[in-house]
Amino acid sequence: MRASQFYLSTLKEAPTDAEIVSHKLMMRAGMIKKLSAGIYNYMPMGLRVIRKIEAIVREEMNRAGAVELSMPIVQPAELWQETGRFDKMGDELLRFKDRHERDFVVQPTSEEVITDIVRQDVRSYRQLPRNLYQIQTKFRDERRPRFGIMRGREFTMKDAYSFHVSFEDLQREYRNMYDTYSRIFTRLGLQFRAVAADTGAIGGIGSHEFHVIAETGEDAIAYSPDSNFAANVELAEAVAPASPRPAPSAELTKVHTPGAKTIEQLATFLKIDARLTVKSVIVEGEDGKPVLLLLRGDHELNEIKAAKLPGVFSPLRFATPASIREAFGADPGSIGPIGFKGQIYMDRTVASMADFVIGANENDQHYTGANLGRDFPEPEAADIRNAVAGDASPDGKGVLAICRGIEVGHIFQLRKRYSEAMGCKFIGEDGKEQVMEMGCYGIGVTRIMGAAIEQNFDERGIIWPDAIAPFRMVICPMGWSRSEAVRDTATALYESLKSAGIDVILDDRDERPGVMFADWELIGVPHRVVIGDRGLKEGQIEYQGRRQSEATRLPAEGAAEALLALLK
Amino acid sequence: MRASQFYLSTLKEAPTDAEIVSHKLMMRAGMIKKLSAGIYNYMPMGLRVIRKIEAIVREEMNRAGAVELSMPIVQPAELWQETGRFDKMGDELLRFKDRHERDFVVQPTSEEVITDIVRQDVRSYRQLPRNLYQIQTKFRDERRPRFGIMRGREFTMKDAYSFHVSFEDLQREYRNMYDTYSRIFTRLGLQFRAVAADTGAIGGIGSHEFHVIAETGEDAIAYSPDSNFAANVELAEAVAPASPRPAPSAELTKVHTPGAKTIEQLATFLKIDARLTVKSVIVEGEDGKPVLLLLRGDHELNEIKAAKLPGVFSPLRFATPASIREAFGADPGSIGPIGFKGQIYMDRTVASMADFVIGANENDQHYTGANLGRDFPEPEAADIRNAVAGDASPDGKGVLAICRGIEVGHIFQLRKRYSEAMGCKFIGEDGKEQVMEMGCYGIGVTRIMGAAIEQNFDERGIIWPDAIAPFRMVICPMGWSRSEAVRDTATALYESLKSAGIDVILDDRDERPGVMFADWELIGVPHRVVIGDRGLKEGQIEYQGRRQSEATRLPAEGAAEALLALLK
Repeated sequence: MRASQFYLSTLKEAPTDAEIVSHKLMMRAGMIKKLSAGIYNYMPMGLRVIRKIEAIVREEMNRAGAVELSMPIVQPAELWQETGRFDKMGDELLRFKDRHERDFVVQPTSEEVITDIVRQDVRSYRQLPRNLYQIQTKFRDERRPRFGIMRGREFTMKDAYSFHVSFEDLQREYRNMYDTYSRIFTRLGLQFRAVAADTGAIGGIGSHEFHVIAETGEDAIAYSPDSNFAANVELAEAVAPASPRPAPSAELTKVHTPGAKTIEQLATFLKIDARLTVKSVIVEGEDGKPVLLLLRGDHELNEIKAAKLPGVFSPLRFATPASIREAFGADPGSIGPIGFKGQIYMDRTVASMADFVIGANENDQHYTGANLGRDFPEPEAADIRNAVAGDASPDGKGVLAICRGIEVGHIFQLRKRYSEAMGCKFIGEDGKEQVMEMGCYGIGVTRIMGAAIEQNFDERGIIWPDAIAPFRMVICPMGWSRSEAVRDTATALYESLKSAGIDVILDDRDERPGVMFADWELIGVPHRVVIGDRGLKEGQIEYQGRRQSEATRLPAEGAAEALLALLK
Repeated sequence: MRASQFYLSTLKEAPTDAEIVSHKLMMRAGMIKKLSAGIYNYMPMGLRVIRKIEAIVREEMNRAGAVELSMPIVQPAELWQETGRFDKMGDELLRFKDRHERDFVVQPTSEEVITDIVRQDVRSYRQLPRNLYQIQTKFRDERRPRFGIMRGREFTMKDAYSFHVSFEDLQREYRNMYDTYSRIFTRLGLQFRAVAADTGAIGGIGSHEFHVIAETGEDAIAYSPDSNFAANVELAEAVAPASPRPAPSAELTKVHTPGAKTIEQLATFLKIDARLTVKSVIVEGEDGKPVLLLLRGDHELNEIKAAKLPGVFSPLRFATPASIREAFGADPGSIGPIGFKGQIYMDRTVASMADFVIGANENDQHYTGANLGRDFPEPEAADIRNAVAGDASPDGKGVLAICRGIEVGHIFQLRKRYSEAMGCKFIGEDGKEQVMEMGCYGIGVTRIMGAAIEQNFDERGIIWPDAIAPFRMVICPMGWSRSEAVRDTATALYESLKSAGIDVILDDRDERPGVMFADWELIGVPHRVVIGDRGLKEGQIEYQGRRQSEATRLPAEGAAEALLALLK
């Protein structure tokens, strides 16, 4: 492509309503143009990125045995009423009436339509399993669209749906999709993690999210750098230290701790590490009585985990200060297990502690040298805290680190939620009619574009991974109109690279070097060649990778071969 | 692709609401599946055809210098209000309100959005010309969707829009697009005609429709088999015979013609050819007085042409029987020019006639041997009739034939209709602000699929052109599970053809030959190879083209090379 024949439109300043880096850079680089809140034009430069993402997704889905089809954007309400989603979904489901006053929706996903197709076409176990997908425009009428295309209203998604004779076969395909997604994000050139996830509103049981790792990500992820373990921090198992509990070595001693109401104040007052303290959290039991939860002082209660404890009210309710005072005879900040007759649970980590500091159930009093079993009965241990960096990884491989991520893919085991509601059945090998098991697998195609930028940028602009760069290489001739030697060398190199299948753009706009460089660094083309008269006199041209701070000189003779080797 | 891994779903019977051949065959072949009136799922087999059409359209648009982008399906009403189309367009424009009660439309085309983009980005003549296109889902809420995807509500269109500094430059690009469209339809493997067209509702001046030729087409087209002339029959110029008018050779004779009110009755009564008669049609003039139009007896008045005659009321109004009686003293069926004092026009063909039969302005009386100039003043000649087969082609090359066509493409010179209304301006070389000239160029991607079938089918099913066939070749092994020799030969041939880049499908479903053949003939794969034990014993396999009535035997040894040569 020659720049003069392409559509370039860069901006010096991002529009003021662009909040995050990827949004600002996409607007400035002329990748997208806003049409309405959460609705964007994909300009030629941005569309090239989208098409490359789509091509990789399509190739890997096909390789995995999925088959592409295309379902309508406008869908009749009847199907959505069969599953109840027409009424249950909020205003983000765009509903409208056609000219004959019949109800329709603009698809946010296509579970209903695909299930309708399969229930019509598939009658026998011999026709299963099936995995069908589309890459299609979706619409969700978000109340407050933001972050550019990261949380827009109109977007492109790859959505796949699989149908099975059994849960076992669903699990096999789920694993197949898990591996396929891993290949896709690897090929896209992105750092990512598959994260064990809550299932959210879409329904089903097993579920993983695929996150692109980026400091600006919305979600915190606990992962092991030494394995492929990763989970949302809220869901990650918090493993107890492997070391056995030391024997008690200190006496239980009551200490006056005036004003020490928080763990931080207590540790400061006693001049000890917070990890030597145990904090007491009181929640409501199912019977309305207080339940005492013990955690190491520096740890955080995980409310989802705690709500699952036997006898604890779910969703979790914290006890009021009044009820705490009544049950413990002291205010929050000075309470503890010694003398408490109600239900107690301790976090697994507490189970490995000895000689700790704990509230004495008297205001401004704590015990030091407290020990399980010796000073109070050893409570039941459970995982009730958030995982933190440094915890052992639950899979036994290495220790956890915490990072932030942007969700770009999601795989679900839907099971029979849709197939049951819509009567999507087959005749099994035994001649009996059964409801199909279903899985669904989404990838946010347009969202990946934003996430890739959040992961790859610097102060000059975007830094695209090679696989999804709008152009892999740009040739910048210095003095296009002035120097025939520059023009000829640049054109010859461009033609060689192009015929070798490299996605190269020749900047023949005759702009000043500063303008050219700024444009291509902003746009984020990963490889740049500069050709000028001065270099050519010495038989040289310059190459610079987008992440490199300095250019390398290459002999002009045989430059195409050298560059091709470099791009491999 | 192996058939067992693909999604095949053929039907013995077409659904009863399928009206035309292409709709029936697409439903039966499992190419599409109805979701709602005029809204279809593109099943895997059909989507392959769509993707091939899109790829050819995209390649040729890029080659022509157009640049691809993608505009949203959901568009804000504000832009549509700028051009007045939000109010002017009928119910086929799907309008809705979002959750914040703001007006939106689902795009049927994108003139407003593209003009909005260009008015933001383009400021100088140096940035022009531009031709931008998208291949995108469109929605038109047709009152009565029919003919399957030929007149559906949701469909895919390639829409391109060009912007220019001058009308001359628009005309250059219009010619470029005309040539590009011709290349596209040629590559698609379709018989087509570019047809000079009325501009219709979209506005503008110059306009051509591209029609796929098919007996079932909605439009009648006059064309010359000896040139590229083609026009809608209503718009085609009707050329006068080249031969000069013979000298009068008969006397003007009044003949009693009882009951001969139509030309047919008159010709039968007089035992002459209708081409020797002249008929009189009376229309209203702008002044309310009758205007007499003379046509050869077998010709049809063209109302569009006649309404453009000086002094004739437009749109055309026929005179009432009463006013005819008053002006001519006779009833329609017996009237003529002799003695009539008002305005008379004759068709150009009448101008070359002598010794003709014409009404005598007395009931049941006609003249034979009438002659122009001698028996009444020679009226002004004009083109006021429909062209018919056998007319000389207006471009001087050959004679016209009439065929029927399905419109699949349309190119327009929009001029300044949208750019003026939306203030899409540039600074010219002279420093002055000017409004851009615009063109627009559409191709009905999904419609082409239907039109291709209307042009290419037989009683067994579809016959795809190679370029857009879902698969180019199918390998049918006889006894897949029974014969290892068949399985090995079929698999080896499949792998060879696949690695040579042929889009081949191996039917490994282990179906009976009759089922296999019926499926692939219905689906319309253009090339078929049959491999069976009997043939293999003689070292032979069978090849049959979809249009051939018999198979050819090929040596199994080297079959891949032979087939590759044949496919070239």
